Amino acid sequence: MLLHNDRLFPAEPKVRSIARSLYERVRGLPIVSPHGHTQAAWFATNDAFPDPAMLFVQPDHYVYRMLYSQGVSLDDLEIGQAVMKDPRKVWRIFASHYHLFRGTPTRMWLDFAFQELFGLEERLSEKTADAYYDTIAAKLLTPEFRPRALYTRFNIEVLATTDSPLDTLEHHAAIRSSEWKGRIVPAFRPDSVVDPEFAGFADNIAKLGAQTGEDTATWDGYLKALRKARARFKALGCTSTDHGHPTAQTADLSKAEAAKLFEKVCTGKASAAEPELFRAQMLTELAQMSLEDGLVMQIHPGSVRNHNRRVFERYGRDTGADIPRATNYVDALRPLLDRFGNESTLTIILFTLDETTYSRELAPLAGHYPCLRLGPAWWFHDSPEGMMRFREQVTETAGFYNTVGFNDDTRAFLSIPARHDVARRIDCAFLARLVAEQRLEEDEAHEVAHELTYGLVKKAYRL
Amino acid sequence: MLLHNDRLFPAEPKVRSIARSLYERVRGLPIVSPHGHTQAAWFATNDAFPDPAMLFVQPDHYVYRMLYSQGVSLDDLEIGQAVMKDPRKVWRIFASHYHLFRGTPTRMWLDFAFQELFGLEERLSEKTADAYYDTIAAKLLTPEFRPRALYTRFNIEVLATTDSPLDTLEHHAAIRSSEWKGRIVPAFRPDSVVDPEFAGFADNIAKLGAQTGEDTATWDGYLKALRKARARFKALGCTSTDHGHPTAQTADLSKAEAAKLFEKVCTGKASAAEPELFRAQMLTELAQMSLEDGLVMQIHPGSVRNHNRRVFERYGRDTGADIPRATNYVDALRPLLDRFGNESTLTIILFTLDETTYSRELAPLAGHYPCLRLGPAWWFHDSPEGMMRFREQVTETAGFYNTVGFNDDTRAFLSIPARHDVARRIDCAFLARLVAEQRLEEDEAHEVAHELTYGLVKKAYRL
Amino acid sequence: MLLHNDRLFPAEPKVRSIARSLYERVRGLPIVSPHGHTQAAWFATNDAFPDPAMLFVQPDHYVYRMLYSQGVSLDDLEIGQAVMKDPRKVWRIFASHYHLFRGTPTRMWLDFAFQELFGLEERLSEKTADAYYDTIAAKLLTPEFRPRALYTRFNIEVLATTDSPLDTLEHHAAIRSSEWKGRIVPAFRPDSVVDPEFAGFADNIAKLGAQTGEDTATWDGYLKALRKARARFKALGCTSTDHGHPTAQTADLSKAEAAKLFEKVCTGKASAAEPELFRAQMLTELAQMSLEDGLVMQIHPGSVRNHNRRVFERYGRDTGADIPRATNYVDALRPLLDRFGNESTLTIILFTLDETTYSRELAPLAGHYPCLRLGPAWWFHDSPEGMMRFREQVTETAGFYNTVGFNDDTRAFLSIPARHDVARRIDCAFLARLVAEQRLEEDEAHEVAHELTYGLVKKAYRL
Repeated sequence: MLLHNDRLFPAEPKVRSIARSLYERVRGLPIVSPHGHTQAAWFATNDAFPDPAMLFVQPDHYVYRMLYSQGVSLDDLEIGQAVMKDPRKVWRIFASHYHLFRGTPTRMWLDFAFQELFGLEERLSEKTADAYYDTIAAKLLTPEFRPRALYTRFNIEVLATTDSPLDTLEHHAAIRSSEWKGRIVPAFRPDSVVDPEFAGFADNIAKLGAQTGEDTATWDGYLKALRKARARFKALGCTSTDHGHPTAQTADLSKAEAAKLFEKVCTGKASAAEPELFRAQMLTELAQMSLEDGLVMQIHPGSVRNHNRRVFERYGRDTGADIPRATNYVDALRPLLDRFGNESTLTIILFTLDETTYSRELAPLAGHYPCLRLGPAWWFHDSPEGMMRFREQVTETAGFYNTVGFNDDTRAFLSIPARHDVARRIDCAFLARLVAEQRLEEDEAHEVAHELTYGLVKKAYRL
Repeated sequence: MLLHNDRLFPAEPKVRSIARSLYERVRGLPIVSPHGHTQAAWFATNDAFPDPAMLFVQPDHYVYRMLYSQGVSLDDLEIGQAVMKDPRKVWRIFASHYHLFRGTPTRMWLDFAFQELFGLEERLSEKTADAYYDTIAAKLLTPEFRPRALYTRFNIEVLATTDSPLDTLEHHAAIRSSEWKGRIVPAFRPDSVVDPEFAGFADNIAKLGAQTGEDTATWDGYLKALRKARARFKALGCTSTDHGHPTAQTADLSKAEAAKLFEKVCTGKASAAEPELFRAQMLTELAQMSLEDGLVMQIHPGSVRNHNRRVFERYGRDTGADIPRATNYVDALRPLLDRFGNESTLTIILFTLDETTYSRELAPLAGHYPCLRLGPAWWFHDSPEGMMRFREQVTETAGFYNTVGFNDDTRAFLSIPARHDVARRIDCAFLARLVAEQRLEEDEAHEVAHELTYGLVKKAYRL
Repeated sequence: MLLHNDRLFPAEPKVRSIARSLYERVRGLPIVSPHGHTQAAWFATNDAFPDPAMLFVQPDHYVYRMLYSQGVSLDDLEIGQAVMKDPRKVWRIFASHYHLFRGTPTRMWLDFAFQELFGLEERLSEKTADAYYDTIAAKLLTPEFRPRALYTRFNIEVLATTDSPLDTLEHHAAIRSSEWKGRIVPAFRPDSVVDPEFAGFADNIAKLGAQTGEDTATWDGYLKALRKARARFKALGCTSTDHGHPTAQTADLSKAEAAKLFEKVCTGKASAAEPELFRAQMLTELAQMSLEDGLVMQIHPGSVRNHNRRVFERYGRDTGADIPRATNYVDALRPLLDRFGNESTLTIILFTLDETTYSRELAPLAGHYPCLRLGPAWWFHDSPEGMMRFREQVTETAGFYNTVGFNDDTRAFLSIPARHDVARRIDCAFLARLVAEQRLEEDEAHEVAHELTYGLVKKAYRL
């Protein structure tokens, strides 16, 4: 067996037994997935997933990042190829390097999918590579492995994708008008039209104008267009927006200043610092819109995107070369909080790649401002140790109720149950320690475990 | 029961048993409280504390911060009201939100007071709110709950308040001239007269001059006035000073430069950066004074005060909207250390809200400079996890003997025994792990536990 | 007994038993020491070590740093004296302050040497000081305590020293031409000729020219001289270089810019910022050389050297007053990585004194770039808690295979077995927890333990 029933629970028998008992009552709860990067098209068309390599290796930057770090060529992995020439060869490379993932969450997510979905019980290795490939490939052709069937099997209650304002959302519309009852909702991620350094920014603004019938050459028209785009998302079930900026900087310019800045960033006249100022101003503008239309804001700052220039130039965005940077919140958020911080009908969910801010900035901020909540441990920190550090470092100041449950945040649909399972286990492990150390009563721990798994995410994301 | 005898001890039976044995020998030691924010007036007048809401909710920013973060209005809590209109209503709001404190130290401190002082054993909730209110209100009227009686009951040996140089210290004088034998001492906190950005700075300087009979319009007169004010504090038992600056920056200007800067900050001619430079220079000047008069310096840097502009404007200072910021010590302290770092008769106790500095800067500094000691985990980090991180991150480089025991640092008098109890338990838990992992012998752990509880604080603060 | 067989293993019986079993299979593996500060002369001359105080107190800044922090004078410890006047008195001071080391790794290293090498079993204290002194002094005179005999007894397979390009390496040459079979290799540490702020920089450059027969007054000649110096090191077994810069900054100037900058820093015409730019450029130049000659690069950034001005002026470099500073890698390394990051034949081993970068920058970087590996927990963090944080914070993103085993990094030859033993125990403790929490299979943990102890260091350092 690849998985043990008690995995991730502390070894001490008393704590383990409490963890097990807490987990038993949340393990079967539906999955609420308010933020991720799956594709609505999968559920609209319900086509079979392709071969094992296209499913497990190509889209998963956690996987090929590690392989690349140890000298495996991205070409040999056929990264970026729309159709793989030799997926079995890619799979064999992956299998023969599987030991690299020891001690990583990727290993745990993969083993979960291998065992729970495909019934595989012998460890993946060079030796078992072909047997794995054949088993998985065969199952992927069966109806039980179509996206909609898996959605049901995974016990998903709602699944949010992440979409550009320029997206037609045709797949979301198709799903809603279909007879299928799965709840797939878009999230509004406007980076392409609010970040002047996004490739094609000026064109994107123009497209936004064309799409909404607004004159996006003007500041007023641009804001109206964003409002219309948001309304279009909302009509398809969207409840949240998402903002992936290099920093958490916000600004609160006068209308005249903002309009002037907008003109500069659209016409290539901006100074080196002004794109950042524009993004900063836009967070505040978007908070204003959220106050109006009720969409929950998510801020995901602090990633240096495309750090590896050569890999970026050859393989494009999101190919595994983003690296976190130290991130300030206490000063950066102040302009926005000065305006909206005390609005209790506004919800802004903060994420970080800089764990030093958990206890120093984020928990004190979320433990005071009514509009702020803390998103779960993100990306590199979405791991057993990372999740545990999150709880240990934020709970004492922000409590449990200023957090928002779990995000799987994944492109890898098949890893969703595994990721939620890890989060549930770690939360139960943390709570079990509190109970065992007489810092929390067991009945309260059960209530909290339910909230961390199901209640808080529904409430925070208004789902 | 709200409290378990073994709370906060590790669950593993062997470690727990060692922790229990260590704790048994320090639990009864007197409380030495060298830094906090209680009021000398309480002990001078010995009046009864008012109702439960005025006692537990209004002065405790840990409490109303959390309530506010979840949408409870500060007006509904009657924050900032000298007399509450409806304290029972405030109490009910608090009680019905008591679940928010799960997993926080606030919960532990409150439960301790509820059970140990008021004999309450059923959990606070909406349902028990009124019974709590009535029980507490009734006991507060009894002689056993007067401040002096509680001081004795809490087994306090000495308790320091924190006071402005402009304070008359009349209550301290009254206590000393009374027949009561409690030892309440002031600490010299000169922010109001050394921080040019403190409200009313210029007026404060003038008042200091009037009070001391020195010409504080001149640099020399100002320094003399500070020396006189310190002497006045010392005469009332003061052994320490305290400095709450935005950063740990120090400076070492020539006398002429310092005099010129003083003139600028007093006359409104300072540039944007000069108030910080003045504060920096003053830390060095105050270290010089400490070298002369033996007062121990405490530096509490790194808090962005009054972060929430609207709450500050409406409710004033210290209403729960201070947020930490990343803090540098290695460069910031260098000017001061260049002058006084090697003085072994000087003691400077460093605190931080930026835990990243524990292992990176503070422990290496305190593990070398004879004048430096490390204050305990502070404010947001004065919690079980926070205290444990402090020990885990500083001990290996700075040892135990460069730390100074525990500070309760509280405005909430009734939380003092609970806070010291948590600190004693966590220190014993840490030591127990070292013993169980054969990293320290048990006889040594007993000695260290005694030092951490009693010996080091007396020595470091010269009490 | 000073040492317990199970020291450093978690107390929980199941985890402890796994840790013990893992450790049993690695405890006897040879010591591979790829980075440290022992002296080749010891092994070339094989003279007896001097008295206990010269052996244990004087060279060990961990030891006298702590004593100094608690008011012991460096003069009383005879720090910096070539011959001690009263080593027994120094030893007695040390012994009577031995309690200061409780909870520190220094205590553990010392106890290991006392018991394992000298057979001492009663704790060092004022009372046992003389017995210790006499026992150690007597044994040091025996053949079994000569450097070469200890090298064999410690089961060292290879030991690297750290050397200046200006060093004659005569002792290394003498060892190689001797009949002794110990493998002592130099490492190329060019700070003195690449850091314009190093004392005597211009003279050093001139000496380098004289030594290599190149015209180091020119950029081309300087680079050629460095290449020749590297070749000379390589001929004596060197496999690595080492770079101790204040930051991790790299640069990638054009040849013309670099040549001009070189001229400025050599002729005293550099601006305040240019020494840093020169060091930055040199890291990239040295990476180019490593790509050519295969020497592995180590970067040890982030230490503020000689922080205590007075101690530095009186006692010189490396007398215990270096303090870490926050260190950025994500931006700093980018120029170098832009050129060489994707070279899988290049190996750059990154170290840090800023633990916040483990999960935020270093693990993501090493988990992607083929040329990067992570050095073990360094200096202040080379301790049980520090090593555990390293594993907990880097493994989930970088895995085990992007790390490089252990460095003892010590001047204290007698502490080498103790330090390696601590590392082996902590790695086994970490792995044991993963196994006990069903995050790793036991057979895999055995393989990983072997790699962390022996396999990875040999491969990464090409030894």
